[in-house]
Amino acid sequence: MEFIAKQIAEILSGKIEGDENAVVSDFSKIEEGKPNSISFLANPKYNHYIYETQSSVVLVNEDFIAEKEIKTTLIRVPDAYKAIAILLNFYNSLQKKPSGIEKPTQIHKTAKIGKKPYIGSFTYISKDVEIGNNVQIYPNCYIGSNVKIGDNTIIYSGVNIYSETKIGKDCVIHSGTVIGADGFGFAPVNDAAFLKIAQIGNVVIEDNVELGALVTVDRATMGSTIIRTGVRLDDHNHVAHNVDVGENTVIAAQGGIAGSTKIGKNCMFAGQIGIAPHVSIANNTILGARAAIPGNIKKEGQTFIGQPGIDPHDFLRASIHFKNFDKIVKRLEKLEKIIEKNNISID
Amino acid sequence: MEFIAKQIAEILSGKIEGDENAVVSDFSKIEEGKPNSISFLANPKYNHYIYETQSSVVLVNEDFIAEKEIKTTLIRVPDAYKAIAILLNFYNSLQKKPSGIEKPTQIHKTAKIGKKPYIGSFTYISKDVEIGNNVQIYPNCYIGSNVKIGDNTIIYSGVNIYSETKIGKDCVIHSGTVIGADGFGFAPVNDAAFLKIAQIGNVVIEDNVELGALVTVDRATMGSTIIRTGVRLDDHNHVAHNVDVGENTVIAAQGGIAGSTKIGKNCMFAGQIGIAPHVSIANNTILGARAAIPGNIKKEGQTFIGQPGIDPHDFLRASIHFKNFDKIVKRLEKLEKIIEKNNISID
Amino acid sequence: MEFIAKQIAEILSGKIEGDENAVVSDFSKIEEGKPNSISFLANPKYNHYIYETQSSVVLVNEDFIAEKEIKTTLIRVPDAYKAIAILLNFYNSLQKKPSGIEKPTQIHKTAKIGKKPYIGSFTYISKDVEIGNNVQIYPNCYIGSNVKIGDNTIIYSGVNIYSETKIGKDCVIHSGTVIGADGFGFAPVNDAAFLKIAQIGNVVIEDNVELGALVTVDRATMGSTIIRTGVRLDDHNHVAHNVDVGENTVIAAQGGIAGSTKIGKNCMFAGQIGIAPHVSIANNTILGARAAIPGNIKKEGQTFIGQPGIDPHDFLRASIHFKNFDKIVKRLEKLEKIIEKNNISID
Repeated sequence: MEFIAKQIAEILSGKIEGDENAVVSDFSKIEEGKPNSISFLANPKYNHYIYETQSSVVLVNEDFIAEKEIKTTLIRVPDAYKAIAILLNFYNSLQKKPSGIEKPTQIHKTAKIGKKPYIGSFTYISKDVEIGNNVQIYPNCYIGSNVKIGDNTIIYSGVNIYSETKIGKDCVIHSGTVIGADGFGFAPVNDAAFLKIAQIGNVVIEDNVELGALVTVDRATMGSTIIRTGVRLDDHNHVAHNVDVGENTVIAAQGGIAGSTKIGKNCMFAGQIGIAPHVSIANNTILGARAAIPGNIKKEGQTFIGQPGIDPHDFLRASIHFKNFDKIVKRLEKLEKIIEKNNISID
Repeated sequence: MEFIAKQIAEILSGKIEGDENAVVSDFSKIEEGKPNSISFLANPKYNHYIYETQSSVVLVNEDFIAEKEIKTTLIRVPDAYKAIAILLNFYNSLQKKPSGIEKPTQIHKTAKIGKKPYIGSFTYISKDVEIGNNVQIYPNCYIGSNVKIGDNTIIYSGVNIYSETKIGKDCVIHSGTVIGADGFGFAPVNDAAFLKIAQIGNVVIEDNVELGALVTVDRATMGSTIIRTGVRLDDHNHVAHNVDVGENTVIAAQGGIAGSTKIGKNCMFAGQIGIAPHVSIANNTILGARAAIPGNIKKEGQTFIGQPGIDPHDFLRASIHFKNFDKIVKRLEKLEKIIEKNNISID
Repeated sequence: MEFIAKQIAEILSGKIEGDENAVVSDFSKIEEGKPNSISFLANPKYNHYIYETQSSVVLVNEDFIAEKEIKTTLIRVPDAYKAIAILLNFYNSLQKKPSGIEKPTQIHKTAKIGKKPYIGSFTYISKDVEIGNNVQIYPNCYIGSNVKIGDNTIIYSGVNIYSETKIGKDCVIHSGTVIGADGFGFAPVNDAAFLKIAQIGNVVIEDNVELGALVTVDRATMGSTIIRTGVRLDDHNHVAHNVDVGENTVIAAQGGIAGSTKIGKNCMFAGQIGIAPHVSIANNTILGARAAIPGNIKKEGQTFIGQPGIDPHDFLRASIHFKNFDKIVKRLEKLEKIIEKNNISID
């Protein structure tokens, strides 16, 4: 596929500076720019690359100000990061998608499959499964009984989905992810042993959700574990039984949400966070990497970092003091000695 | 399936208050109670729901005291949480189990399969495998050579079990879990490169063990990595080579136990903990979420939290001071200035 | 297989003390030594076992000094740990390897398979895949289109490799690992929702790399995520999009490297570490368990521990003070009271 700068500017409603006939057939990072490729510049940290890049076209923010001569063709857009996202998705939508039902697969006779499916070899579809239109299920997946999967959802290879799970439209689920395994519920019996509590609830994943690779979303003890519309969970996240993750919340890799916790809408959590069981987190909460949240967060829009999570400014200053803790204690000891030597006392 | 309150009270040796003919055909959470369903109330935090719940029957602790009129039928039992566990398991035991050997599977001619097996499609059973009676192995599993699996064990879809692994009776292993991959052992050679140390030991999982989804239990370098009877490991746990996890120990999600460490019996670890290699943890140790244990714990029955793990009371107070660390240092600075201004000194 | 001490000493260029005809047919740990087995002693902590071990032969370091009579046969070598690694690998190389292409598999007609392959049942090999000589791919793997795999590489069961991934020679990839899933890239649109950024780059894994079980290495947004020659990643590690991990770097279990970060050569990271996005870590950096690195590390050969990572000596002292934080604050309060009572003030 080949485009010229003018066509791309039209798609993005951008303004060209330079050669409007510059040819683009590929994408590249600005620091690794190649002729006939398009790059983007959104982070000012990378500004210096624009004067030397070999990319034929670079998307920049409207307000970008050049400090030297630029040889490449620019397309100015309101938001260069969003613009490249649109272009990449456009490019991706032109790629050929797999289709058809390959052999061998195991599809139960009671399963209902919508129009234009892709079902890869060695995928197992159980009793009473309902699959919408344009769904892609790659090889080696397991879809348990009574699972529902909405239109246009893509399930990559090696995904395991337990019975009763409901998945909405336009979702993407990456390889190795496990949805609907038993929640971790045990009642102590006698002194030591534990009795397993059968987990008879399910998992509900609404529309337009993306789950990364090797994510776990456990089924509810009773009722449903819910991942709401627009949620994105990166690789290795763990969502325990009866959790409810609010709309458009985004969680980077390796986080853990303990049982029965409710996460609000539009939250953004960095990697490796942890949230206690049975708590409620307000909408628009932001967590820094590795934040641990032991209790409810009631006020919306706050940011936390640390373990337990605190205000980032407090955390930053406290961390510096922590590093110097020994010096601080030595200063205290010095004062104590002075007070003692001078016979100053309370009494 | 339908039961009446009287039948349930008999199963649980409970005492009915209300309509002993109330019909129950489902379970629900007390806060989402529905007619003809049974709920339970164990956590006093949820007491207020009992006055409005639509559930037809609610299990409560013997000593529960109502503060208002209750419309639903109560069954009083010594431990409502344990009682619901028993009921759920009873309900689960009535569900139909999969059975038979589906096609296609790959079962080596030397493998021995016990009575009443379920082996799902696309499961691979290698040479000299021995499988007990009533074992369920879901689709897309890999069972390496010389693996032994005891009676009644359930292995969900997509589990990978390396050669020589021994698994006992009545175990449950959830999807995507990997048992017996190589331990992480490398000997430095020259300045920089590492020589892999072949891992020729195995993994032994005793009886009545439950492993969550996407758990790893690595094989021993020599000898065995051992998970003892009654252990429960939640999703994403990692058990390194030559570890020994004691009876009935329970570990919540995303924990990591480093190589050659020995964990005692009846320990309870919250999520995201980490334990150093080559250490020994006493019986009945409790770890709070995210606790990190760098050395031996010799005394039984202690609780730790923090990184490194300390007494929870110390941790709680220290965490509050940490948040206020900047103010504390400013108070110290103020004292230093006072001392200086007043010409008080050691000399 | 049976060897005598003399043969083993020759392989390792070691020096025998004791019976040079001692027979060895197995390996055992020194503390669980059995007749006709060989053990090793490298860690002085285990020295006391050598006087009682039942092992017929023990490898010891050249400079080992016995404090009592030793009954077993010793072989002195420059590095006992390295020597046992060599012996174990030699032993492993004598084991029979699986070979041939099993049925059923799904191999695209355009795929090129080298000499002496092993491809297990239920493995799926897509369009335009190129596989070198002596490659072993165990059952239930998915190999996406246009993937290349170099000579002698071993891919265990249940591995998922997305399209365009390049894997070098002599690599080992353990079960359940996912290579090439989408990086976690989303551009905010409007107030709340996120637009997925198509990830059109790939993953490049060079030669002699070992990836543990359930590892994720995400594909680049553009360009490549790179794991360089000799890298070893333990189970559950997460490598985000556009990361570059330098030669011979070793990372223990459950670490996470955020997007676009560059890790130097010969680094050694303990378990559960985390590194921020868009940072650069110098060669030979050492991270203690659970270290969190928020920014660049420019100087080579430093060690960090804590969150954020600091010098280990500072961390150790600070951790002790943290535990005693409440007492330290009480000492400060006492001084404040003394100063106040004595009417000492700045003014």
